[in-house]
Formats: sequence, C-alpha cells, structure tokens
Amino acid sequence: MKNKLVYKHIGKVLIVFSILLLIPILISLLFRESIVPFIIPLSISLLIGMLLDSLDVKNKTLYARDGFIIVALSWIIISILGSLPFMIDLHISFPDALFESVSGFTTTGATIFSDVEKLSKSILFWRSFTHFIGGMGVLTFVMAVIPLSRDDKSMHVLKAEMPGPSVAKLVPGIKKTLFYLYAIYLVLTISEIILLLIGGLDFFNSMLIAMSTAGTGGFAYLNSSLATFSLFNKYVVALFMFLFGINFNIYFLVVVMKEIKVALRSEELKTYILLYLSSIIFLLINTYSKFSSFSDALSSSVFHISSFMTSTGFSIGDVNIYPTSCRVVILALMLISACAGSTCGGFKISRLVICYKKIKRDLLKIIHPNSVHIITFEGKKVEEETVNSTCTFLFLYVFLIIVIMVLIGFEGFGLETTINAVFTTFANVGLCFNISNFAAFSSFSKIVLSIGMLLGRLEIFPLIVLMTSLRK
Amino acid sequence: MKNKLVYKHIGKVLIVFSILLLIPILISLLFRESIVPFIIPLSISLLIGMLLDSLDVKNKTLYARDGFIIVALSWIIISILGSLPFMIDLHISFPDALFESVSGFTTTGATIFSDVEKLSKSILFWRSFTHFIGGMGVLTFVMAVIPLSRDDKSMHVLKAEMPGPSVAKLVPGIKKTLFYLYAIYLVLTISEIILLLIGGLDFFNSMLIAMSTAGTGGFAYLNSSLATFSLFNKYVVALFMFLFGINFNIYFLVVVMKEIKVALRSEELKTYILLYLSSIIFLLINTYSKFSSFSDALSSSVFHISSFMTSTGFSIGDVNIYPTSCRVVILALMLISACAGSTCGGFKISRLVICYKKIKRDLLKIIHPNSVHIITFEGKKVEEETVNSTCTFLFLYVFLIIVIMVLIGFEGFGLETTINAVFTTFANVGLCFNISNFAAFSSFSKIVLSIGMLLGRLEIFPLIVLMTSLRK
Repeated sequence: MKNKLVYKHIGKVLIVFSILLLIPILISLLFRESIVPFIIPLSISLLIGMLLDSLDVKNKTLYARDGFIIVALSWIIISILGSLPFMIDLHISFPDALFESVSGFTTTGATIFSDVEKLSKSILFWRSFTHFIGGMGVLTFVMAVIPLSRDDKSMHVLKAEMPGPSVAKLVPGIKKTLFYLYAIYLVLTISEIILLLIGGLDFFNSMLIAMSTAGTGGFAYLNSSLATFSLFNKYVVALFMFLFGINFNIYFLVVVMKEIKVALRSEELKTYILLYLSSIIFLLINTYSKFSSFSDALSSSVFHISSFMTSTGFSIGDVNIYPTSCRVVILALMLISACAGSTCGGFKISRLVICYKKIKRDLLKIIHPNSVHIITFEGKKVEEETVNSTCTFLFLYVFLIIVIMVLIGFEGFGLETTINAVFTTFANVGLCFNISNFAAFSSFSKIVLSIGMLLGRLEIFPLIVLMTSLRK
Repeated sequence: MKNKLVYKHIGKVLIVFSILLLIPILISLLFRESIVPFIIPLSISLLIGMLLDSLDVKNKTLYARDGFIIVALSWIIISILGSLPFMIDLHISFPDALFESVSGFTTTGATIFSDVEKLSKSILFWRSFTHFIGGMGVLTFVMAVIPLSRDDKSMHVLKAEMPGPSVAKLVPGIKKTLFYLYAIYLVLTISEIILLLIGGLDFFNSMLIAMSTAGTGGFAYLNSSLATFSLFNKYVVALFMFLFGINFNIYFLVVVMKEIKVALRSEELKTYILLYLSSIIFLLINTYSKFSSFSDALSSSVFHISSFMTSTGFSIGDVNIYPTSCRVVILALMLISACAGSTCGGFKISRLVICYKKIKRDLLKIIHPNSVHIITFEGKKVEEETVNSTCTFLFLYVFLIIVIMVLIGFEGFGLETTINAVFTTFANVGLCFNISNFAAFSSFSKIVLSIGMLLGRLEIFPLIVLMTSLRK
C-alpha cells in the first residue's frame, strides 16, 4: 500500500465517524447516562482521522485496488472503534465487544448478550445505530457528506462497498446519486417510525426498530425480539423488511424518474417477489398445523420469511418449531438473500438470476450447438466479465463458508448448530435455529465469525485484496 | 427425440447388458442358487435390445445432444432392469430395489438392507458386479466390446458418460483407448484380489471387495463393512481406493507411454495427493485421543479418508466418533471427491483446480487491471468454455443438492441426517454419519435419492438434456 491517498481517505472516514458519535452522546445526555463510552472512541477516531487527513499526498490517482483497500481498512477500524462503547460500558472482553460491533455494522444482528433488556438506553441506541450506518455503507455515508476524490475515482470506492454484481450511477454525479439514495433511505425509515407509533410503540423504541429494519440488521431491545409486538406492528416491520430488501434503484426509478413501468419490469424485483411469496406459501403449508390459529401461522410465515430473506433477523416466536424441509428452504434463502443495491447481505437475487440464465444458455448450447445465446438482465446485455465475476464470487462464497465451518467446528457443537452459526453470520442474518445468542461461543470463534460477517457484508473481495496487499 | 439412431444405440447397450447377466447366472449355478432372478432381466433386456437394434436407421449422424440422451436413457433402463434380481429374489418393493440397483451402478454403495449377511451369494455378487460395471461406465463398456458409430461420433457418448470437465482420446482410435483403460482397470482389480488373498481373505470375498473397490462403490458382504478385516487387508483396500481415485490417464502415461516424468508433473495428481495427505493428518490430529492406540487412530484416518474422498464408502469402524470439524472436512471432501477420469463421483479435483485458478486470475485482475492472465492446467491453456462449463456445473451442483435436501427434509429427520443422506448419495459415496442404511427412508425419498445418485454419477447434464428433450 504505497498509495498515501488511501490513508488520507481513511482519515476523512474517521473524522466523519467521530462526528457521527455525537448522536449516541446526545442520547446518553437525554437519558442521563454516562457519555464516557462514546467520548473515548470519538476522541481516538478524531485524532487518528486528523493525523491521516493531514498527510501530504501528491499522487491523486486512485485505482480499483485502492478502492477495495480503503473499504476493507475503514470497516475494520470502525468495527474496532465501535466495540469500545461495549467494552467501556459493560466491561466485556474485546472479542465479545468486537463481535457485537461487527454484527452491528455488517447489519447481521447476532448478539453475544443473553439479556439485552439489561442494557442501557444509549447502548441499545448504539446497537441499532450501527445497523443504520452499516446498512447503506460506511463509505457511502462519508461520500454523501464530504467529497473524497474526483467523481470517476470515487466509483472505485463505491463499487467496492456496494452489494451486488455491479453499481451504476443513477444520475450524473455521485453526490447527487447518494443524496437521492439517502433521501429514500430516510423517508422509508421515518415512514416505519410513524407506522410503529400508530401501532402503539413509543418513539424511542420505534426509532430503534426502524433503524434496525432499515439496515436489515436485527438488533432489538427485548430478549424475545418482536414476539410481544401487536399484530399490526408485526406486519409493519415485515412490510418494511420486505421494502428494504428491494434494490434502491427501483425506488429511484419510481420516485425520481417517475418510470413506474420500467421499475415494474425489473427482473430482479419480479424474481424477489416470486421467491418471497412462494416461500411464504411453502412455509405456511408446512407449518400451519403447528399453530393454534391460521392468523398466527400466517403472521409467523410472513414475518420470518421477510426476516430471513432480507437478512434482518427479527423474530416473533420460536423458529425451532419449523421442520427440516422448511429449515433447508430458509437456510437457502438466507444464503441467497434479497436484491442487490439493497441493505441486505448474502448472494443477492441479481446474481441468482444471472446464474440461472447462464445455466439456461449453457444447456441450450448443448442442445443447439450452432445457435448464439446472449445473457440479458434488466433489458441489457450482461458482459461476460460480470458472468465471470459472479462465478468467482460463488466459488469464494462456498469455499469460505466451508473454511469457517471447519474452524467453528472446533467448538464441538453439532453439525447443525455449526451450520446455523456460520450461515447466519456469513449471510449477515443474525437469526438462526438452535442458537438464541452467541454468548456460549469461544473468543476464537467470535473473532472467526466476526471476520466472516465482514467478508459477507463486503462481498469478500475487499478483504482478500487487502490481505494480498499486506503480503507485499 | 427424432433420431432413431439413439434407440438403436440403446438396443446395442441392452444386448451387451444381457450378455453381462450371464456372469451372475454362472455364480448362481456355482453356489446352487436360483438363476430365475437373473434369467428374467436377461430375457427382457435381450428382447428389447434386439427389437431396438433391428430399427432401420437411415440418418447416421449423432449429435452431442444425442450422446447425452443415449447415456441418460441407458442408465435409467439398466438401473430398472438391475433392480429385478432384488425384487425377484428378496420380494422387496420397486423403490427399494431401484435404490439398491442405482446405488450399485452409480457406485454409491448406500444400501437399503439392514442385514446384508442374509443375502445369497449371487445377490452379493450382483451388488459388487454392478459397482464394477458402473465404475468405468455402462456405455464405455459397451463401446469397448462393439462398435457403435464412427469414432468421432462415439466421442459424444463417451463425453457424456465420462466424469470430469473434459475427455481426451489417449491414443488414436477410441477402441484402442478403451482397451488400455480396461486393461488398467482389470490389472488393478486383479492385483487387489491377489493382495487380499495374501492377507487371508477367501477368493469369492476378495473378488467382491476388489470389484467394489474398483468401481469406488462400497457394497460389502458384512454388516460391519470391513471392520473385522486384518490390518494388512485394511491397508490394502485403503491403498486401492486411493489408486482408483487417480485419473486413469496417469496410469496410461506411465504404463503405455512410459512418460513417468510427465505423469508426476500432473497438477491434478499433485493436488489429489496433497489434499489426501493433509486430510489424513487433520483427521489424525483431531481424533487420535479417541483411540486406544496410535495404530488404530492412523488406520482409521487413512482408511476413512481414502473411503470418503474416493467416494467408495467402506468403513472399518464407527465414523460417528468424529467431531464436528472433521465431519465438515469429510463432507467437503465427499463433495469434491478425487480425480476426473477415475471411477469416483463428486465435483472432481480437476474442477477444483480450475476454480482455484479462476479465482486467482480474477483477483489478479483487480490488483493489476492491465495485465493479461491465462489459466493453464496440466501444461495446457484452459479454454474459457471449459472454465465456463465448470461454473455452470457448480451452480447446478449446489442447486440440485438444495432441491434434493428440501425433498428429503419432508422425511422429518433432523437437518444433519438430511445433509448426510443427500451428500452421500449425490456424491456417490454411500457411507455417512448418523445413517447405517437407508431402510428407514420412505419410498418417495428412495426414488428422489436414486435420481440424485444418477444425477451425481452422470454429472447432471445428460439427465437435464433428456428432460428438456422429453418436453418437446
């Protein structure tokens, strides 16, 4: 990493991060809680940030590789800084605090706390706030606030952080694009808060749940997650989990460009809705006999499919009642997750569609060897390079899951628990079968799973590029 | 399927198959057992075979698609005919008999019998004999005996049946190639019989075990598999399992071409040996405390890694003692399996190497966008088409495993048992954790798993091409 510009960028990220830490401090003051847990990371972040930002950089060129490194390093540093509030306020060990922090920023929502109801208001806020920041991406947020590089160079950073096979500028100028994306994000979040308030929840808790939903995170403020919520509020959260699983380009097309017809023709959206509805029906058919009423069975199916598929991880009841066939479907949905360009984790529907079309093309090639088949997606030709990188992503995705499973296997839990723990963290879901929290895992496993969550959220490449750069 | 030549080919396959059935009849006569279980399928096979062979075919052109269809249909018909001896001799249901027959031909070795020691000699022979035929491939055998089409057209059939990403003619002329392959196959099998005889096993049982090893099948004649074998014979079988997992091209290079240096440079062979040895060491380190002596721990590790990795499925003791991390490694090895061009199932090492190189290339592209990277394998450039089809194969591989798991999930066994059952059949292994035989599975599951075994053995494409052709 000879490029000093990388460090300068990280400096800017840390300065913005230190400003963001003012918000939990405000919450601490409001609830008359200690501000020390947030003042310390704020000071460190500001100090390092200003130091790095003051670097004199002559070379203004940023390469694709640098984009990956900036993203990887920023996420690692912010995860470490974000763990300080937990360590200071709750006197827990670094691996525990890191797990909780990474789980927050990567919008996983898996927790090491067996009793979240004991946590202070400011810590509860911090957990949901990390979801909210992590959902849209740390760098994305920074770039929305301050200019980093020239537009075309910033794309490297955006590309490295944004989920899905490709990222497109929606309107000319990255800042304008990011402005619209954040506007959509905020409007949806505020809408959820309003509906939850109508549903009878108080403002603070509505805000927590809405922030956790927005990032498709899953941290809640009750040990039973959302089980005690009213039926209305359960459906509100289910609806917004579904909405935050949609590619934000779709909202952009509808709201900004008024191209509703184009938006509705989106193959990814159609596949998402199809998969979503058919999974709900599958779950309902296979579990309704386990519930006392059809309404309970329906709400359980709708809520939990929304939660698992969008990698959120809220629950409204014991998911361990689901039989094996449903578990397999849910585990598969977890790994697939929802749309690219949303706040969700996982493999992404768009990649799934590209894979499906690739298989179809290759089979057609066998049957009609002389005909030419082009893969199209959302009305455009998919470049072979995109198909190619989708394949590479799948290889790495499968490979890393296996490696992490071997490492977590040393815990000595059964295979099923190991699978659940690894899938739920790697796909950034947070909810899983057989495990209600991660307190019982060793420090080693917590660190491994934290790395897994980061790999999953950043879609693997940034961390690997960082590793290969460190070796040189 | 307008091409009548397809049916004519299948006719020839059935005629050869009926001749093969003379061998178990000979065994029945030797042991004074009924020949009816084999006479009936022989008659049916001969009758249909002669009918189809008598078809008047003008069009002599065979397309790639036809190759796939011939292979798929031949395997389905022969699996059904091969189930008749079980139904007639043991009065078991069709799904049970089909499962056993498919398990035999696909060299899986999973059984529906809870007590194989009760089976007659001729049925025991039949089980191992199906492994022996299925190992090298039904069509491969037929083509070694009688000419089907012109050489270049027969390649379509060979390509469709042979495991691995590509098949090459070793010497000019398919028949000569097949002759050498079968010679190697027979010499290895006979060597194993001789060594087992030296180890104190009687001739009939040595033959059964050697045939099951040759096809990397796994059917044994004792309920405890090979647990009561002498240490010497355990290592003999382990050695031959390893040897049958090597690409037959390697033997060809060494024995026929005398190119030992070229053979030893094989990347696939080196990767296979590396993976094999490191897995043994991993298993040994993580399990030696569970054994009373180091010798027991070593033999268990060597034998079971050989058995799982080559998709054979013999065992010499309870594999359920293995802890979770070892189970994850073993499940991964099962799915990967050994070399292409061997008698093993699974994804194949060569595909793994191609995947690894593809990932490496794509990462290098990110780090050095302007440099050109070519994937080479075994000293030759890998065509993008091969890389491409390897990706498609992986997609289908993962997708089908999930679908079969959902279907088997309906049984109501736990997730772990479901995973074990599906992986062990789909990868044609036969041995797995938590399940000693498949008697407890429903007829529905037996049919689904049988389809899974065929999909795994034929490497998916033939059956899918057949399905798409049927729809037209």
